[in-house]
Amino acid sequence: MSDTALVIFTPSGKRGHVARGTSVLAAARQLGVDLDSVCGGRGICSKCQVTPGVGDFPKHGVTVSATALSDWNAVEARYDEKRGLAKGRRLGCQATIEGDVVIDVPPGSQVHKQVVRKAAATREITMDPATRLYYVEVREPDMHEPTGDLQRLAEAMERDWEITGLTASTTVLTRLQPALRKGNWAVTVAVWHDHKGGAARLIDIWPGYFEGRLFGLAVDLGSTTIAAHLCDLRNGQVTASAGLMNPQIRFGEDLMSRVSYAMMNPGGAAQMTEAVRDAMDQLARELAEEAEVPPEQIVEAVVVCNPVMHHLLLGIDPVELGQAPFALATSDAVTSAAVDFGMTSINAEAQGYLLPCIAGHVGADCAAVALSEEPYKSDDLVLICDVGTNAEILLGTKNRVLACSSPTGPAFEGAQISSGQRAAPGAIERVEIDPATKEPRFRVIGSDLWSDHPGFAAATAEMGITGICGSGIIEAVAEMRMAGLLDASGLIGSAEATGTSRAIPDGRTFAYVLHDGSADGGPVITVTQGDIRAIQLAKSALFAGARLLMDELGVDAVDRVVLAGAFGAHISPKHAMVLGMIPDCPLEKVTSAGNAAGTGARIALCDISARARIEAEVRRIQKVETAIEPRFQEHFIAANAIPHATAPFSELAKVVTLPDVSFNAGNASDSGRRRRRRA
Amino acid sequence: MSDTALVIFTPSGKRGHVARGTSVLAAARQLGVDLDSVCGGRGICSKCQVTPGVGDFPKHGVTVSATALSDWNAVEARYDEKRGLAKGRRLGCQATIEGDVVIDVPPGSQVHKQVVRKAAATREITMDPATRLYYVEVREPDMHEPTGDLQRLAEAMERDWEITGLTASTTVLTRLQPALRKGNWAVTVAVWHDHKGGAARLIDIWPGYFEGRLFGLAVDLGSTTIAAHLCDLRNGQVTASAGLMNPQIRFGEDLMSRVSYAMMNPGGAAQMTEAVRDAMDQLARELAEEAEVPPEQIVEAVVVCNPVMHHLLLGIDPVELGQAPFALATSDAVTSAAVDFGMTSINAEAQGYLLPCIAGHVGADCAAVALSEEPYKSDDLVLICDVGTNAEILLGTKNRVLACSSPTGPAFEGAQISSGQRAAPGAIERVEIDPATKEPRFRVIGSDLWSDHPGFAAATAEMGITGICGSGIIEAVAEMRMAGLLDASGLIGSAEATGTSRAIPDGRTFAYVLHDGSADGGPVITVTQGDIRAIQLAKSALFAGARLLMDELGVDAVDRVVLAGAFGAHISPKHAMVLGMIPDCPLEKVTSAGNAAGTGARIALCDISARARIEAEVRRIQKVETAIEPRFQEHFIAANAIPHATAPFSELAKVVTLPDVSFNAGNASDSGRRRRRRA
Repeated sequence: MSDTALVIFTPSGKRGHVARGTSVLAAARQLGVDLDSVCGGRGICSKCQVTPGVGDFPKHGVTVSATALSDWNAVEARYDEKRGLAKGRRLGCQATIEGDVVIDVPPGSQVHKQVVRKAAATREITMDPATRLYYVEVREPDMHEPTGDLQRLAEAMERDWEITGLTASTTVLTRLQPALRKGNWAVTVAVWHDHKGGAARLIDIWPGYFEGRLFGLAVDLGSTTIAAHLCDLRNGQVTASAGLMNPQIRFGEDLMSRVSYAMMNPGGAAQMTEAVRDAMDQLARELAEEAEVPPEQIVEAVVVCNPVMHHLLLGIDPVELGQAPFALATSDAVTSAAVDFGMTSINAEAQGYLLPCIAGHVGADCAAVALSEEPYKSDDLVLICDVGTNAEILLGTKNRVLACSSPTGPAFEGAQISSGQRAAPGAIERVEIDPATKEPRFRVIGSDLWSDHPGFAAATAEMGITGICGSGIIEAVAEMRMAGLLDASGLIGSAEATGTSRAIPDGRTFAYVLHDGSADGGPVITVTQGDIRAIQLAKSALFAGARLLMDELGVDAVDRVVLAGAFGAHISPKHAMVLGMIPDCPLEKVTSAGNAAGTGARIALCDISARARIEAEVRRIQKVETAIEPRFQEHFIAANAIPHATAPFSELAKVVTLPDVSFNAGNASDSGRRRRRRA
Repeated sequence: MSDTALVIFTPSGKRGHVARGTSVLAAARQLGVDLDSVCGGRGICSKCQVTPGVGDFPKHGVTVSATALSDWNAVEARYDEKRGLAKGRRLGCQATIEGDVVIDVPPGSQVHKQVVRKAAATREITMDPATRLYYVEVREPDMHEPTGDLQRLAEAMERDWEITGLTASTTVLTRLQPALRKGNWAVTVAVWHDHKGGAARLIDIWPGYFEGRLFGLAVDLGSTTIAAHLCDLRNGQVTASAGLMNPQIRFGEDLMSRVSYAMMNPGGAAQMTEAVRDAMDQLARELAEEAEVPPEQIVEAVVVCNPVMHHLLLGIDPVELGQAPFALATSDAVTSAAVDFGMTSINAEAQGYLLPCIAGHVGADCAAVALSEEPYKSDDLVLICDVGTNAEILLGTKNRVLACSSPTGPAFEGAQISSGQRAAPGAIERVEIDPATKEPRFRVIGSDLWSDHPGFAAATAEMGITGICGSGIIEAVAEMRMAGLLDASGLIGSAEATGTSRAIPDGRTFAYVLHDGSADGGPVITVTQGDIRAIQLAKSALFAGARLLMDELGVDAVDRVVLAGAFGAHISPKHAMVLGMIPDCPLEKVTSAGNAAGTGARIALCDISARARIEAEVRRIQKVETAIEPRFQEHFIAANAIPHATAPFSELAKVVTLPDVSFNAGNASDSGRRRRRRA
């Protein structure tokens, strides 16, 4: 009998000969197979579970006998008794290889497991978070060879995990000695790794084997809203999500008014910094509470945001971003303590990461969208629009990517809309209007039923129907246009002109009643002329930004469009096209990506190699400055109509009919009538 | 005429040919000559001044013509007019080489200038501080090539100073943009360099060329006293010095009682941490005020201290240091923010450095003494005793160095001494007692006159004679022994036994009146029997520690002794030998090093290569644990006498006479008399 045995690992297919008696875990390490272990092979963590095969494996040219692995041992028996080991599973650190064998590494036992994203474009995130847990046994102190406890911990980390140069802040140092002694010289440590290589930093320490998990925050810090996800750093799962209005709104609705506030008020920037940091901390606390996660187990935070928010978060006066040449204080990614981002309630040593900015108006949020949607890998010409108070727009292929930012205002997020609200249960998110009857039906967040379904009232009774969110207002305006309630200039017709009593007078103009909940004490939800104008301004800005990039690239059409938005469900491609938010493109080539910036933040949170990747890619992205480009204004004005003249909706025409009505006359007479009614 | 010219730099002797028209500064850089420049050759800083020679230089085999350098130019003329350029001096960045020339680089123009230490053992410190100033001109932002201001600053630092990877905290980032604009894209930056290579950190920034200087603090944090020096980081000069009692004294006089306090009182360690950090900050503020240095120009702090103070300063519970195996939380040097050492009033970005600890009882203070006195470079066997509340003792040669710490208590620092005080104006620091008359004379800090000098009363009138400091009490006890006022067991004789009315009854024992200032409302300064006992305990501990190291090395004598003490003037070698503080050694081989730990701190402050050096040397130093060594107790008991029996003072005998008197009988009768008097 040979001294060695053939071992084949699936699904990687890695194979090789190892000495008989080698543990499966050791064999995996020898052959470079991704088999997890937190306890370093001590039979404690059970992360190294494998499924050995028995019988013929013609594909691999091997027959595996029942004795190819060592017998089930006492450690495995104890583990099975205490926590249960699934049938067919073995602990890789306990089972030794005694004959030729095929061993499957289930996804849960892979360190760098692939996590399938739920977004429309299915893509895998490799789990490789910056901060990970390691179980380690440390040499006891010896009076005759006096080294510090930290130095002996560092030595053990190098010995067991090949992690060199472990450092610790003075704060975490204060907890090192009690933990080592309580754990009888065995501890679990959380260690943060710099994605640029080198630094390894002790974040936390627990006595013995720590059963808990580590979590991270992915935060999309928008001008109007802040969205945060609490993610499990083991598998990337979102454990809890929460959103808040950005409290800086009281200093200015849009970015430029906040920059002005900082310029006009001494200490104004500091006030805004304090407000946003407080909000970040509040979100972190809420998420920890909701997910019932001890706050100290939140050890990382990745933030994406536009440049003005970026500077205000870091405490930098954004004044330079309000005037040409829009110079950033720093454009590179920022690795800092999470406490510098205001997060004082999570682990005190938690590390923060801010994605790089592309330019003075094109921020870390755009970089995050790029990281999520990867235009720099695209074979065809893709236009990516991330719709928020500022739209982040990317256009390009793997050869060249352009980026710009466009000030759409908060309308797409449901703000500055008469019945607008953020995406939360009770908010109208989908709208359809029958072109014949002009009657609407809708869906609200929190229920899958349309409003004309018999069960709808019961399903929504508790939460109520409270308002309309960003995706809802986009659909409502587009449906109104398609139902002939709006003319091409965006004017709402009167009841006479449109033939529906849902068109009611509202000041000098009209509004469309989407939902009248007044009988049950609920709100009357209308779409007003002001709402239409706000959406028109927003969509014109978005369209103009996209056109500017197309001009720069010298193209008149794009191959595909990706629509993304931080809040609410996905933006409906059809409605976006009806509105004229986006340029000409076959409808089936328009997809929704959900909160792409937030997804980018999550990717950077779960995979440090993504940080290195986006830092490199950002240097290649060419930015276009909308603020000083006269063509931007031209495109903006030209894009005001619904739909605008330059967009032939040939594809769309197959699906919807666009009645060409105009209410100019009706409107004039109507306002006359209104005056009469008042008199 | 050749296109090149020969240039010879003195004092380095470096020579080579450079193209005619090369500036002297550029030539110096080409030839590796140490010629300073802060402004990078822009004629602003004047740090590159040189003195060109004219005429024959037979030593160098060259004749220098008057036209060897370019003519005095407009920049030099303007500089001379505004600030004055010494005769014969040129600005190295302006003068170009036009012919063979000999150029002297004066010491003030060398970057790594050598600073001669004032201590007894003359040694040079190479100036190479971690934090230095650089003047740099930064590219203006360009909208079409959008990089952050920090990235363009980093690019300029790499271009002009070969400093790569500049990083900045979010705090300093907040001041980057205004400084760059105010300075019209020229700034002076303070950059900190990690002595392990690599990291370069932006500490501060000033618009344009900053005329100010940078300073650092060297702090010797003792159990009883804290001594700090404010040093000019350009030349190493001590600009101001200050001392404070360690406020932790209220929690316990000695280290072990503070460890006990921490063990017995929840939050006790934190209280002590707060107290010592407050004191550190107070010292820093006082020094800045005294030296009239803007606190933000203090950019570094180096601290040396024993392990218990080390842990308490860092906020680590010192409980493990109170029991075997005396495990340190961390033994390596600590590089941290100075604010972690409590220094909140200096530059917010100031970096702190704590020297490495040698063992659980042998701290960073001992490492600092080693750095200052360099036993690891000694050809002969040197014993170094740093006398404080704990004595740090080093013994060895370049082949092997041993270290230990011995708990001497605070007596040597003037604490727990009836008239003791810290070394400050008015404290008695030198004492002589006439063996015939038993009359004392003394000197106080703040005056060079002995007390029997006619001008003494006038010289000390204002400050008064307030007490006796550490070096004073050592001399007083030794002189009392030499004058026959004490017997070998340390007992003070009565007036009858000693023949002087200065020996007065004091409880059951006697005291010696050193100074009676009561006529002028001043104190009566006596040396009591309790004082003698305190000094005996202290010196026995010191001696026992030294003996223990000698045992370990298997020697009975040392080649030389270096005495060091944090406070007051130098300890008198003669008196130390009389007391039996130190083992047998020729008197001329006993030297005083002043505050060697403080000097070590200063060296580490002025020269980052010293940090790397001591970190390497500390690993080679073998420590001996006094606390668990039975022989330490034996030596301690044996060393109680003055002088002890095992020390043949042959050398000393040439200078002083040791009367062999005993007061045992006299004392008994005297205490009887005292009882009678009371009755």
